[in-house]
Amino acid sequence: MAERLEVENDLKDALHNTFAEFSRFGKTELGGVSRLAASVADGQARDYLCDWLKKNGLDITVDAVGNIFGTLDLECGDPDQHFFCGSHLDSQPNGGRFDGALGVVCACIAALLIKERVKAGKISPTCGRIVVACWTSEEGARFQPSLLGSGVFTGKLSEATALSITDKDNIALSQALSKIGYLGTGVAPRPERYLEIHIEQGRRLEDTGTAIGIVTSCWGARKLRVETRGRPDHTGPAPMDERKDALCCAAHVVLATNRIAKTAQVPVHSSVGRMEIEPNSPNTVAERVQLWTEFRCSDEDELERVESQFIETLSQKGRETGCEVNVLSTEKRAVVEFDETAVDLAEAALDNAKISHMRLTTIAGHDAVSLQAICPATLLFVPSKNGVSHTPEEFTSAEDFAVGFDAVVCVISDLISLPSDAPALKAHHV
Amino acid sequence: MAERLEVENDLKDALHNTFAEFSRFGKTELGGVSRLAASVADGQARDYLCDWLKKNGLDITVDAVGNIFGTLDLECGDPDQHFFCGSHLDSQPNGGRFDGALGVVCACIAALLIKERVKAGKISPTCGRIVVACWTSEEGARFQPSLLGSGVFTGKLSEATALSITDKDNIALSQALSKIGYLGTGVAPRPERYLEIHIEQGRRLEDTGTAIGIVTSCWGARKLRVETRGRPDHTGPAPMDERKDALCCAAHVVLATNRIAKTAQVPVHSSVGRMEIEPNSPNTVAERVQLWTEFRCSDEDELERVESQFIETLSQKGRETGCEVNVLSTEKRAVVEFDETAVDLAEAALDNAKISHMRLTTIAGHDAVSLQAICPATLLFVPSKNGVSHTPEEFTSAEDFAVGFDAVVCVISDLISLPSDAPALKAHHV
Repeated sequence: MAERLEVENDLKDALHNTFAEFSRFGKTELGGVSRLAASVADGQARDYLCDWLKKNGLDITVDAVGNIFGTLDLECGDPDQHFFCGSHLDSQPNGGRFDGALGVVCACIAALLIKERVKAGKISPTCGRIVVACWTSEEGARFQPSLLGSGVFTGKLSEATALSITDKDNIALSQALSKIGYLGTGVAPRPERYLEIHIEQGRRLEDTGTAIGIVTSCWGARKLRVETRGRPDHTGPAPMDERKDALCCAAHVVLATNRIAKTAQVPVHSSVGRMEIEPNSPNTVAERVQLWTEFRCSDEDELERVESQFIETLSQKGRETGCEVNVLSTEKRAVVEFDETAVDLAEAALDNAKISHMRLTTIAGHDAVSLQAICPATLLFVPSKNGVSHTPEEFTSAEDFAVGFDAVVCVISDLISLPSDAPALKAHHV
Repeated sequence: MAERLEVENDLKDALHNTFAEFSRFGKTELGGVSRLAASVADGQARDYLCDWLKKNGLDITVDAVGNIFGTLDLECGDPDQHFFCGSHLDSQPNGGRFDGALGVVCACIAALLIKERVKAGKISPTCGRIVVACWTSEEGARFQPSLLGSGVFTGKLSEATALSITDKDNIALSQALSKIGYLGTGVAPRPERYLEIHIEQGRRLEDTGTAIGIVTSCWGARKLRVETRGRPDHTGPAPMDERKDALCCAAHVVLATNRIAKTAQVPVHSSVGRMEIEPNSPNTVAERVQLWTEFRCSDEDELERVESQFIETLSQKGRETGCEVNVLSTEKRAVVEFDETAVDLAEAALDNAKISHMRLTTIAGHDAVSLQAICPATLLFVPSKNGVSHTPEEFTSAEDFAVGFDAVVCVISDLISLPSDAPALKAHHV
């Protein structure tokens, strides 16, 4: 059970103990977590979060797509202005325990600490409320697209569309959320600003011995769901030259995405992570394969070029294998630049606190990328061993975690105290 | 509900009506069936079969792996000699309704007709009993290997091994059979001979306008379950040249099996029909892929050569993609020649009945191939439209079906009446 915290007294223990609690939900043998969005394990982690928020005096709102918001009244500043801080609790199947949860735990404890400091007269906030946000289905492992909850919150995706998205067993998000008790009806306040801290998913911080990354931009992406359609046949007698083997065609598509990415003019990243094969029986030539393909790049023009080249290759591979190849959906994610003033302010805050930092670009999407569409968003990174993520091997040391938390507190302390007419404060509102 | 049949009266109706009844179980929208071994639908088809057998006076035995045997006492001939006739009721997912079920229905009605003719003094059998056999899990769609029930019956596979085989949801065959009530304890009699009729799965009969194929041999096969092992990573940030992408490696394996088959010196058939990808999430580089690969050929030496070439290619593709590639299991299926005397006898019987016939080779395995290891087995084919199988498009016309049934009856009538010291009768016993 979550406990009421006296944060100033034993801060580091609270941070690590609370994080350890979250690591229990969906824990895997290898020390990671398997906590798919709206699964039983996700429900348990959410229950723990809500229990913690309640015990520590935050008011809980759950919206229509299960985003959880814990609002803390700072009893000072404008009660209509809300500073948001958060991340997500869902994980990849057999994923790591830091991706997402680290940011949620930092947000929870930072909120309490900020309030203590406001009470003590050390901070004079303009935002009268701080909101801990836990976004639904950031990972896109069970329900696609990723950044689902923050995408709905910021208007990129409609609520109705999101709720009707189904997993591979044809369970809709609405059903899954209802089952764990997180199909809410609440309406969250709107944010003045957003801050998120996350593991780096790269090795720049580790390699340079830097404590914090301040993210300035996010690569764009094209995510194409492709189907290859062949003809079912017996794998034995069907004549080889008459087969329309959807899996052969899909194999060509997998290798083509890899080749196109590796031969691009600007660095392009790509892997096919998911395929669904029908009927997927050893003795039947595959009739249909769906592939979830993607290309990520810092350059929009290159993304356009790569996408065209890919679509041309699809047609060619279809012709070569006698299969039909269709693009079922295309998701375009533009390159996103984070608010420049917010980056400058974060740098100044970290300088003041004598915490080492560097500017970074993120290749992976984050909820902060969604939020940047409606308010200035700040994304901070902490080092992650060997830069790996989406694996049980994810690891951030207790020391790096603690410094990350300090960074969150000092950056929020500055951002929350900006005069309400500060130029960057509302610059990005839609 | 099944009915007691007066077979001589309305034979064709009984044949087609009974077949239509079986087509209901696991029926799919496209007119095929999805009746995986030991599934609910398979259980329903088995229940119907047992009901039918009981109503028509056959004694039912269900053995430890769920094979169903319906024994009909001909009340004439040696009661210790059993003539077996049968096929299977399981199907591929989204498969056709003729593959297997046609043979079971022909066996059922032929048994009754033979008895009527024995009673009428038209046949004087040496075998005193006829046994309708329905073999468990011929298809190998849900549980691998295929030919499972007949493999256990003929000693190729141990009972314990077969029962412990699991499907993709980790359900053991023993559990699945128990759930549908077909984990039996009975011990079946041993066959003197076996006869099976099946759809051709090729176009030779259709192209030549021939009614019946008499199968003389079955291609050999090598079935290798292969795994590629990479490293899970985020599909976005992970550097392209450091990825160990198990799905990329698997795609190379799929294309290699195809290329090796197509460039073999003797015709080799191959497709990869099934792959299991872990974790199969769009945002995670695949950590592990299992592939069910196979090569089929009429020539053992070529199979050996192709297998070696394939294994060499696996190592090479592993090196190229930074993945580990392992062969998890290898199943060797030798080329099988059917009993020559039985082929001659079938030809003579069909000549007598003025039914056109030709000798054929089967590329696909059949329960008759298993049975040939312990007794002379006869495998007959009827035409199948466009030669397709493992698809809802499987189709054998009512006329071809009826001629196939006539062929079964006249061939059994001759084989069952052979003198007990006929040279071929026990030649293949182990």
